[in-house]
Amino acid sequence: MQVTKVALVGMGTVGTGVVRLLYDQGDRTARHAGQILWLEEVVVHDLKKGREVQLPKGLISDDLARITDNPEIKVVAHLVGGLEPARTILLQLLEAGKDVVTANKALLAEHGPELFDRARELGRSIAFDAAVAGGIPIITNIGQCFSANQIQSLRGILNGTSNFIVSQMEEQGADYAAALAEAQKRGFAEADPTMDVDGSDAAQKLAILAHLAFGARVHWTEIPRVGIDKLDPADLKYAKELGYRIKLIAVAQLQPGGLELHVSPTLVKVGTPLAEVRQAFNAISVVGDAVGPVFFHGLGAGQMPTASAVVADMIDTAVGRTQITFRTLELWSQKEAAVKMLDHDELTGRYYLRFTVEDRPGVLAEIAGVLGKHGISIASVIQHEAKGSGVNRVVPLVIMTYQAREGDARKAVEAISQLTSVKAPCVRMRVLDGTSES
Amino acid sequence: MQVTKVALVGMGTVGTGVVRLLYDQGDRTARHAGQILWLEEVVVHDLKKGREVQLPKGLISDDLARITDNPEIKVVAHLVGGLEPARTILLQLLEAGKDVVTANKALLAEHGPELFDRARELGRSIAFDAAVAGGIPIITNIGQCFSANQIQSLRGILNGTSNFIVSQMEEQGADYAAALAEAQKRGFAEADPTMDVDGSDAAQKLAILAHLAFGARVHWTEIPRVGIDKLDPADLKYAKELGYRIKLIAVAQLQPGGLELHVSPTLVKVGTPLAEVRQAFNAISVVGDAVGPVFFHGLGAGQMPTASAVVADMIDTAVGRTQITFRTLELWSQKEAAVKMLDHDELTGRYYLRFTVEDRPGVLAEIAGVLGKHGISIASVIQHEAKGSGVNRVVPLVIMTYQAREGDARKAVEAISQLTSVKAPCVRMRVLDGTSES
Ligand SMILES: NC(=O)c1ccc[n+]([C@@H]2O[C@H](COP(=O)([O-])OP(=O)(O)OC[C@H]3O[C@@H](n4cnc5c(N)ncnc54)[C@H](OP(=O)(O)O)[C@@H]3O)[C@@H](O)[C@H]2O)c1
Ligand SMILES: NC(=O)c1ccc[n+]([C@@H]2O[C@H](COP(=O)([O-])OP(=O)(O)OC[C@H]3O[C@@H](n4cnc5c(N)ncnc54)[C@H](OP(=O)(O)O)[C@@H]3O)[C@@H](O)[C@H]2O)c1
Repeated sequence: MQVTKVALVGMGTVGTGVVRLLYDQGDRTARHAGQILWLEEVVVHDLKKGREVQLPKGLISDDLARITDNPEIKVVAHLVGGLEPARTILLQLLEAGKDVVTANKALLAEHGPELFDRARELGRSIAFDAAVAGGIPIITNIGQCFSANQIQSLRGILNGTSNFIVSQMEEQGADYAAALAEAQKRGFAEADPTMDVDGSDAAQKLAILAHLAFGARVHWTEIPRVGIDKLDPADLKYAKELGYRIKLIAVAQLQPGGLELHVSPTLVKVGTPLAEVRQAFNAISVVGDAVGPVFFHGLGAGQMPTASAVVADMIDTAVGRTQITFRTLELWSQKEAAVKMLDHDELTGRYYLRFTVEDRPGVLAEIAGVLGKHGISIASVIQHEAKGSGVNRVVPLVIMTYQAREGDARKAVEAISQLTSVKAPCVRMRVLDGTSES
Repeated sequence: MQVTKVALVGMGTVGTGVVRLLYDQGDRTARHAGQILWLEEVVVHDLKKGREVQLPKGLISDDLARITDNPEIKVVAHLVGGLEPARTILLQLLEAGKDVVTANKALLAEHGPELFDRARELGRSIAFDAAVAGGIPIITNIGQCFSANQIQSLRGILNGTSNFIVSQMEEQGADYAAALAEAQKRGFAEADPTMDVDGSDAAQKLAILAHLAFGARVHWTEIPRVGIDKLDPADLKYAKELGYRIKLIAVAQLQPGGLELHVSPTLVKVGTPLAEVRQAFNAISVVGDAVGPVFFHGLGAGQMPTASAVVADMIDTAVGRTQITFRTLELWSQKEAAVKMLDHDELTGRYYLRFTVEDRPGVLAEIAGVLGKHGISIASVIQHEAKGSGVNRVVPLVIMTYQAREGDARKAVEAISQLTSVKAPCVRMRVLDGTSES
């Protein structure tokens, strides 16, 4: 049987999973790959750290040159997080003639053009299915399985941490802080969860997907994004009353004139697939013009699901499929963008609005007036009886709109915030009715 | 740009879709393939038939030799149904040195070993992602994306016609005949729907999946199967009362000692992904030991979804990915089966039982006694008050069991059928609680 020598840089959460698959399940991998993937070197940062999986002496080191200087090693899994030294390491691997597999979405979202150009110049490849949605092979499905389609839309729950927190808030009635603490306790959230909960991580993944599916050339920081870190349990309650759940949804949708792109907490109709995604699961709803709607659901992170994606990429690279795909797709090339991102204000959508208002006659009419002046029609209103008493009594006013321009909705809410009858910051979220989803 | 000449045999429902993609969307296909797929020949059976898509004169003929004698044609989509002449045509294409893409699951399920062996001898490949679950790229996902896993189970809704009929019966309260007529009217069922509704089509697809995912070498006729053609609306009603829907579920699950394989109407817990699959959609829940549960949902048939899969396979073949995968997987080779199918009687499961019994005291005790003698414990019972009057009054008795051996459940129901208090054939269905699903 043919043997391909492979190596790992990084043996943390994901790297340890990869070692388990390559080392403990070597026979099986060989059977599925039609060749042996021989783990020749593992390079880490701190040799003194204890490891969950024991490797034979001599296999593990802190010396990258043992990989870059060994011409027999063909495929290297790059499982180091962050931007530096991750970027430098990846470039060194390419320069040394290695085909690289990476799980580092932040690095791709930040330095994709530089890294992919360099790989092309050197005749090498980069595989990255583990970088988006972990165990869901969305990169291969879009780049290969749906290649007969013009993708029309992608809607995804791409950050498991956020989904876990929102699920906890909804199902356990926890507030944001308690739900985050629980996510950290269970290992679903990092010590510093900022990038997860503020929408950045989902925006990075969306930028990669939009690049692949639409030929968009958008840096993730250009994608309008709102996280779940300011989510108020009250809105989960009202959403439920209206037949919706709130999910952090990443959207890339082809519209006349350009591409709609954003990440935000969104009301998703109960019973549609995205609304039923619980805990730390990820899901993606893809619509292609030929294939129609296809929905994927699976574990978006975690040691073994991510390692599953990394090892599949290593096999694809060892057998030569990755190189073909890489040449074909011209990812992050200097080619002009195939589509431009639309101005956020020009998008349309339905909105959920919550206002905290004085409990007196005429307030609803006043607010409806401002909405009307901005061309926004009201689809439904919830106004419960006020609790408490006194002249300073406030009541929540929840409004669902019909289709409206984003810019109009934004300006209307800004104008309403100025009214003296409005007593707290307004809440505005998009609404998905799931019409074009499977 | 590189050009690969391709051809089609068959331009019916699927073939017309493929022509639309290759011909009307040729630029896009070229962009996604990194090369031009040039449609050189289309061969049909009856040249006089009207075609939905007009092709230039000279491109279409009824002469297969125009493909087999043209060495410039490298990739041929074989879109002829049935066993003969489909089998002979496919062999002729291979002999002529063509790499073949087919959507014909019946042919693969029947003659897979012969066709794949011949392809291997000739150094050719066969791609078949369109043959199972249409637009859902399940073949590529299992054969490539999950190659780091031992697949542990597959549970699928693989026949859209059956799912449409059962959905109609459930949602519209239609009986089987009316639902079937509606399916035929809407083009979801063939004039002769036998293979779809009796479970054969799903068993053919399951045989292909079990082959790919588990290395099973099982002919589809060996797979125990029950269709939906005898489904009684009463059971849909009782299932609903119990919190379930009835779906035609195909199961391939690794058990200690072998592989569980069957196709049957099954009670699926409401709220689990498979229960929410409506209309003519297909869905597959895969569990891999590394990736965990992954769920796919999409259109399992129809012109464009199926054509999407065919053209993706044609691109994979033109660029060379298919050949790599084909060599690696050794499908339908003479290799020994990696796993044996378990004896159906040895399987375990929970069961839904419905008996039509005399309305008199002691009948439940009698039936419970027979179940107990066969080692079957009752989890719950529904017995409504009888309607009608007279001494011949019968009542339905619905029982959900705990885990039991299939053989015991079968024998118990046979014994109960012999009781004089039992007045009509008994109904027995499996129950899925969705514990290991995503
Ligand atoms: N964890 C997940 O579920 C998941 C899911 C999808 C994608 N990812 C991505 O996968 C990548 C790895 O994640 P992880 O969770 O495995 O991270 P991790 O547990 O922090 O592990 C990082 C590894 O990189 C090694 N490393 C750091 N600097 C190095 C250097 N200069 N030279 C060599 N090795 C170095 C570390 O070595 P020491 O062990 O010696 O410190 C460690 O083994 C990240 O980009 C992450 O975003 C992770
Ligand atoms: N329809 C779906 O949604 C779907 C989904 C998945 C898989 N499939 C599979 O795809 C295959 C094709 O299905 P379909 O629905 O497209 O069938 P179809 O509409 O009946 O078309 C069959 C085509 O084969 C041609 N043909 C028959 N005998 C031939 C011969 N001796 N030489 C050359 N051409 C011949 C016919 O020619 P004429 O047009 O001249 O009669 C026709 O164009 C079947 O195996 C089916 O199971 C179909």
